[in-house]
Amino acid sequence: MRLRNIKNKQEILDQSSYLITNPEIYRGRWHELFQNDHPIFIEIGMGKGQFIIENAKRHPEINYIGIERYDTVLARALPKIDGSYPNLYIVRFNATFIDQIFDREIDRIYLNFSDPWPKKRHVSRRLMCTLFLKKYDAIFKNSKEIHMKTDNRELFEFALTSFSQYGYQLEEVHLDLYQSDIKENIATEYEEKFVKEHKPIYHCIVRKSEEILHKKL
Amino acid sequence: MRLRNIKNKQEILDQSSYLITNPEIYRGRWHELFQNDHPIFIEIGMGKGQFIIENAKRHPEINYIGIERYDTVLARALPKIDGSYPNLYIVRFNATFIDQIFDREIDRIYLNFSDPWPKKRHVSRRLMCTLFLKKYDAIFKNSKEIHMKTDNRELFEFALTSFSQYGYQLEEVHLDLYQSDIKENIATEYEEKFVKEHKPIYHCIVRKSEEILHKKL
Repeated sequence: MRLRNIKNKQEILDQSSYLITNPEIYRGRWHELFQNDHPIFIEIGMGKGQFIIENAKRHPEINYIGIERYDTVLARALPKIDGSYPNLYIVRFNATFIDQIFDREIDRIYLNFSDPWPKKRHVSRRLMCTLFLKKYDAIFKNSKEIHMKTDNRELFEFALTSFSQYGYQLEEVHLDLYQSDIKENIATEYEEKFVKEHKPIYHCIVRKSEEILHKKL
Repeated sequence: MRLRNIKNKQEILDQSSYLITNPEIYRGRWHELFQNDHPIFIEIGMGKGQFIIENAKRHPEINYIGIERYDTVLARALPKIDGSYPNLYIVRFNATFIDQIFDREIDRIYLNFSDPWPKKRHVSRRLMCTLFLKKYDAIFKNSKEIHMKTDNRELFEFALTSFSQYGYQLEEVHLDLYQSDIKENIATEYEEKFVKEHKPIYHCIVRKSEEILHKKL
């Protein structure tokens, strides 16, 4: 996500107690930072932050880490943190190297309205391609669980086949999320915009566990 | 599919050389009937027949069997067979007992615009539920391949998760078939109607082979 520049960007970033700019030093030790053994859920490409902040607010029993690479975006997200959330950190990092900051300690990954990279030559940049799924294998703790939302039909078609062919099972699929009766949905800023435009939101939950695969045989 | 009654229904059925009303006797011996070893593709719920007849016409190297339980529907489909197709048979049968007419000899199943059975208590009547997937296991030859099309969002959501959780992998998924660039698509009568109404057509190809599962481990 790219946004217009903000003048006092650096100031906002420097002042935030939530922002981590050297995440590599916590690799394998994020639980020490959170000072508990609660599950860790991450959002790759957190954008303006509404989703991850609201999650942290509603679920104090879960640790949340939002990842975003652009300072301009972070400078918009950080001021939105409107309370004290010991279960929330924001990380400035390029997800291409995500296995350099986590080591078998993540319980769930959220991929919300990720860049669709529509051109064929950019397939390897999509956060659901095999290249990324391999990296996720190295950061997940036990069972692997990905929650995805998008408004982009082609990206969702790609993601479903990519997940499936990598061994993930579809737990839930919604092809028009706002017509479905799911229990809890926290919208992103993008999502609110698309819903107003009456665009369908695609959603899925996929899971991979060695046990499931064993049972099949 | 239920249609208005046709007066000369029985006459049409009796006169057709394509209709098989005692399919049980060919179980395990369909290749003898076709007099070749070509792959056998079946359509469960062939309705008015346009899809399976057009397939038989275009692909003489494949054997096709259309299955339909209602005489009224069959009486509309049979007169549409406008030539001589040694690679086509139409079977009057209730798919609930499909494993009584085939035995490890089918290469592909088509499920087009199947009854969605929207009520929860009717889940077991949907042609993509576990109960049916188990029966299909017994009729498939080697690799298992199902091609599905529907206009019903909820049925498609159900089918994707059902296939996946039963061990099928998604090979292709289209959430708006007529916006996609697939090579060949043969429309059913229903499909033509829905496309005129600008309804999206959902489509998927799923496959299950023991080898794929082994590779994952």
